[in-house]
This record gives sequence, structure tokens and C-alpha cells, in this order.
Amino acid sequence: MSPLAGPVERLINEFSRLPGIGPKTASRLTFHLLRQPKEQAQALAEALQGLQKVVHCQRCFNIAESSPCAICSDAERDRSIICVVEEPLDVLAIERTREYRGLYHVLHGAISPVEGIGPDDLKIAELLKRLQEEPVEEVLLATNPNLEGEATAMYIARLLSPLSVRVTRLARGLPVGGDLEYADSVTLARALEGRSEI
Amino acid sequence: MSPLAGPVERLINEFSRLPGIGPKTASRLTFHLLRQPKEQAQALAEALQGLQKVVHCQRCFNIAESSPCAICSDAERDRSIICVVEEPLDVLAIERTREYRGLYHVLHGAISPVEGIGPDDLKIAELLKRLQEEPVEEVLLATNPNLEGEATAMYIARLLSPLSVRVTRLARGLPVGGDLEYADSVTLARALEGRSEI
Repeated sequence: MSPLAGPVERLINEFSRLPGIGPKTASRLTFHLLRQPKEQAQALAEALQGLQKVVHCQRCFNIAESSPCAICSDAERDRSIICVVEEPLDVLAIERTREYRGLYHVLHGAISPVEGIGPDDLKIAELLKRLQEEPVEEVLLATNPNLEGEATAMYIARLLSPLSVRVTRLARGLPVGGDLEYADSVTLARALEGRSEI
Repeated sequence: MSPLAGPVERLINEFSRLPGIGPKTASRLTFHLLRQPKEQAQALAEALQGLQKVVHCQRCFNIAESSPCAICSDAERDRSIICVVEEPLDVLAIERTREYRGLYHVLHGAISPVEGIGPDDLKIAELLKRLQEEPVEEVLLATNPNLEGEATAMYIARLLSPLSVRVTRLARGLPVGGDLEYADSVTLARALEGRSEI
């Protein structure tokens, strides 16, 4: 017989299934909720159930409440440029800059032979289809600046080379607020390579 | 207009309200759930709703599915000893040792002038009432070995001194698997004080 009430144990187990949350953290979260007004656990439960309503936009494959999503159906956005990212969170990061007013395309991953993820597992065919149907002039490849992201960008750039579309990438260089002394040599090399006139 | 779907934003906000979970972790958890089968978010939501069924045992004040709780109503437990702890999680820790077969009493905190928690905020009056009604021979004070826990134990010990009940405390000493070299001097002093014949 467990000394814990069934519902408590069940919640600890469910919390433990989340990434980065071990049994200790799961207990801590559960007992925290037990000490709070019951409304808080209820609000979290309802927020979780709200996820069932989330869909993928069938144009850009970002997560959304409806398809096409708010960005794709926003007449104010610049339809001549598509920013290609790996994950919906990347859309969020770019939107936060308030510098980009074009459309997006979410690949839902990056090419990774190690993890067995090939081009067919990503929304690349869907991107090519969009380029045929939409008045796109520029494709901005904003995959992550790591091995998988670079490979994915290279692959897409090659696919797009026969098309009359400009293919660009995010600049690489020193992070703002960073310290030259602590920059890794690859980043520093890219920063030198991409140096610009003041 | 937020670039994130409303339900996603709502879940990130709710996760952020949990202790130790900042906005970044909250996003990570939310997007993890979006990538999993919908059943996982649903199971977590149901587990959270299950918390509404959790009550406090009106005898020992541990969390339980019913009052009296499974431990209080277990005829196999030794009713002559009550182990006094601060929190329900402490009951769990002691139960895991499988060394203790008595009853519990959960104080729901410790005396802490800094946080404005006095004896009246804890289940101390309820403990005294139990001692009058139940055939208790020993009260084992298992509050935390820190300032607040010690103060609480001292306070309860003084309250119980007129009663014909044995009052004991958990032993202090070196943690098993620990290293003498790294033991703090207070712990080492307690270990010397409490040394026993082999």
C-alpha cells in the first residue's frame, strides 16, 4: 500500500513524464499545487485541455488556432518573403525582434542522419509547393546555426537554386552583449568573414 | 497580436506559475506536449483534476483520499507511537525506509518568526487533542534538522513535558555514504556526541 493518496501519486507520475522533470521535482510541483487554492491546479488542467484545439496551419505549418494561421491570413504581412525555421518556437523568437514582417514556413525539425530524420520527414515538399503558388521573391533560411541546421539550409538552398528566388541566411557573428574574449573561434571566424563598414 | 496561438500562450503562462519553472522552461514543456500524442496532455490534465479529490485526514492531517486516511485506519499499525513531521512529503520519506510502523501527525509547517508562522498556524493543538484521546506512549519529533525544525521540536517537547508520554527525536550524525572529510562541524559534533558501541 502506498502511503500517498492515489491522485497525488498519479500527478507525480504525469509530471515526471515531462522532459527535465525528475521524480523529485514532480513531487515538489505536486505538493506545491496541493498547498495552493484548488483553482490553480484547475486552471493548469484547463490550459492543458486547451491544447487539443491547437492545429497546424496548412500553409506555413506553424501551430495555430485555425488554418490558415493569423500570420498567413494577415494582409499587412509582406508576402514576398518566407522565413524558413525548424520549430514553432523559432517563429516566436523572430517575432519578438519586431524586425520581420514577412511570412514563415516551419519545417518541424532539421535533417539529422544520426536521428534518422531525412528531408522527407520535414515540410520541405510543402515549401516547394508554396514557392510555385505564392509570389515569393526571397527565402530566408533561419535554421539553427548548428550541424543539423546548416545541413538542412544547404539542402534547401540546393533545391531552390534552379528557381528564380533569392535565398538568404541569417548573419553569423558575435552575439550582442557578448565578450570577444569568450567567443569560440568558429563564431569569431564568421564575424571576421562577415565584417561590415561602420 | 501575439504570434502564438491563444491556448499555447495560456499553457505557457500556467506552467510559469509553478515554482522553479520560468518562461523558458514553460515554453519548452508546452512545445514538448504539442509534439507528443494528445493523450499525454489529456492524462496530465486529468491527473491535475484528480487533486480536487484529495483531502486532509482529520486525524493526522496527512493528505489522503478519505478521512481517516489509509495509515490512520490501518489496524496493523502501531498506535502507541506518533511520528510528528512538518509536511506530507516527510511521511513519504519515512515510509520509504520501511522501518516505521506507527502513526503520523503532519504539522503543515514549522515555527518561523521570520515568515510569521507561529504555533497556532500549525496542527499542534490537534496533536495535543490526539494525545488525550489515543493510547499514545511515544511522540517521535521528526521535524527538519534546521533552525525552524529544531525550534518547533523544542516548543512541542516543552508542551508535552507535563504529560506522561515519551518524547524522542531522530538521531543526528553522519549521513550514510557521506565523507567524514566533507561533513560540517556541527554534524560531526553531533556524531561524536551520539557515538555508540560497536
